[in-house]
Amino acid sequence: MTIELALGPGAEFDAIRELLARWGDRAEGIGDDAAVLALPRGDALVASVDTAVEGRHFRRDWLTPREIAYRATTAALSDLAAMASHPRGILVALCVPAAWRSALGDLADGIGDAVDIARTRILGGNISGGTELSITTTVLGSTFTPLTRGGARPGDSVYVTGTLGGVGAELEALLAAAPPTRHRARFVHPMARIREAIWLSEHGATSAVDVSDGLAADARHVAAASGVGLSLDADLVPRFDDVTAEQALASGEEYELLVTARAPFDVAAFEARFDVPLTRIGDVVAGAATVEFRGARVATVRGYDHFSP
Amino acid sequence: MTIELALGPGAEFDAIRELLARWGDRAEGIGDDAAVLALPRGDALVASVDTAVEGRHFRRDWLTPREIAYRATTAALSDLAAMASHPRGILVALCVPAAWRSALGDLADGIGDAVDIARTRILGGNISGGTELSITTTVLGSTFTPLTRGGARPGDSVYVTGTLGGVGAELEALLAAAPPTRHRARFVHPMARIREAIWLSEHGATSAVDVSDGLAADARHVAAASGVGLSLDADLVPRFDDVTAEQALASGEEYELLVTARAPFDVAAFEARFDVPLTRIGDVVAGAATVEFRGARVATVRGYDHFSP
Repeated sequence: MTIELALGPGAEFDAIRELLARWGDRAEGIGDDAAVLALPRGDALVASVDTAVEGRHFRRDWLTPREIAYRATTAALSDLAAMASHPRGILVALCVPAAWRSALGDLADGIGDAVDIARTRILGGNISGGTELSITTTVLGSTFTPLTRGGARPGDSVYVTGTLGGVGAELEALLAAAPPTRHRARFVHPMARIREAIWLSEHGATSAVDVSDGLAADARHVAAASGVGLSLDADLVPRFDDVTAEQALASGEEYELLVTARAPFDVAAFEARFDVPLTRIGDVVAGAATVEFRGARVATVRGYDHFSP
Repeated sequence: MTIELALGPGAEFDAIRELLARWGDRAEGIGDDAAVLALPRGDALVASVDTAVEGRHFRRDWLTPREIAYRATTAALSDLAAMASHPRGILVALCVPAAWRSALGDLADGIGDAVDIARTRILGGNISGGTELSITTTVLGSTFTPLTRGGARPGDSVYVTGTLGGVGAELEALLAAAPPTRHRARFVHPMARIREAIWLSEHGATSAVDVSDGLAADARHVAAASGVGLSLDADLVPRFDDVTAEQALASGEEYELLVTARAPFDVAAFEARFDVPLTRIGDVVAGAATVEFRGARVATVRGYDHFSP
């Protein structure tokens, strides 16, 4: 754990003490130049990095510091889910402006919440000053059989977990300064579908991506990486009853999983185990690497690009 | 590789294309939710993260963008050297303000330079906007026998690589807006002592730390982690002839190695192989976990805290 807040003598150590006190045994062993971690024999390492920047990925008046840090950490962990990987630990790099210094403990708690839910731990980190808060999370996982975006083949079925559109609806309300919607919890407290992804991988998934840019955009990533077409039925995409199909397909930061499989999944077994819907929404087809929507008339669906200009 | 620059349609993909074009086969395989990496059988994973922030760790008018990115990446890689680890790859998270957008290719080249010298590669990354440039580098390495700060034992000898003080002297000149010193190259182009560290580990090193905060401060890290005293001779610490012992001991971002060993190293063999000085500067002693300097009268040596207020 490196710290450099330039807060004056003593204050830097107060900051690191505060973080470590909040994290407790979730961050045991921090303190050397780097973390050391044994991976299960035969597993490959899976690694990804994600940054959340104030005013760009979140606004301070929309969420508490604890919620902001939870969402940032969960967004990064969701990339491990997309690879069907077991989390082995995270590294946290924080840029903390002076105005955020008093929120440091709450930020630590939000990171701790996400780490607890993912049943992992904090391996190391870095704190520095800055003019805007940013949280950069590196997630490390491992798996014997990584699930990539590139494994979909013609004839596979396409599935999605969860119910879409709530996150986008709440974001729209926030942007309009309207009262919170009934979907606020979906926005504030997303879940990285880690255990779900491992189950799906063990039951024949051929490819996966997490829904971070919106299902339509993320489906295109799978099509491009696999070199196949995706023919999806917009009417089958599970959505809340107060959002349109277009809204459901464009809603980003859902952190649900879009998964392909050769043989059909045992949906009842999945839903009984995880209490999360699993829905077949279309087929992988031969031909150009594009995504077609049948069913409800769907206008061009724009990828999600946060709320920044 | 995730990208989100909010530069308008097309511009985001131009940015990622520019990065990948500069990196070439140093960044092959980027494009899934996470990178997948096989580690040598039996090795432990070693991981660390480091952030360099504009105006805090560097100033734009002191260095070219390529040099800034090289230094940031090398600083992170130096943590792998301190653990005597083989680099396996890095993840790069960039916050790029609009004013830096035209420098993106040069930043990519600086990262590429550091990766080439360390004989490693770029596994993934993230780009977002921001109001100040920041470069957060996660370094991943592996080793069968990690070298920590905690292995020094009474009776060990203490060594340091390189010649100290040049980086601090150049930094002082920059802060005073004075002409560059003869040490400019030490400041602009530090080296992560990766191969040196692996050699030292294979030849009996018991602990190591890289000199990032200044030798005096980093020696205290070893003393604390190992629960031993360090008795160092300030006159033996190799320094340039135009810096004082105090300056050499306080000079940070040197990225040399402070190493302890039970049996003496074959200094001639090390220096012949790496063309880098290796100097015995004192002893590990029993007692309180403190650092004592004998020899030249050394006033209290302050740890290095960059140039920020």
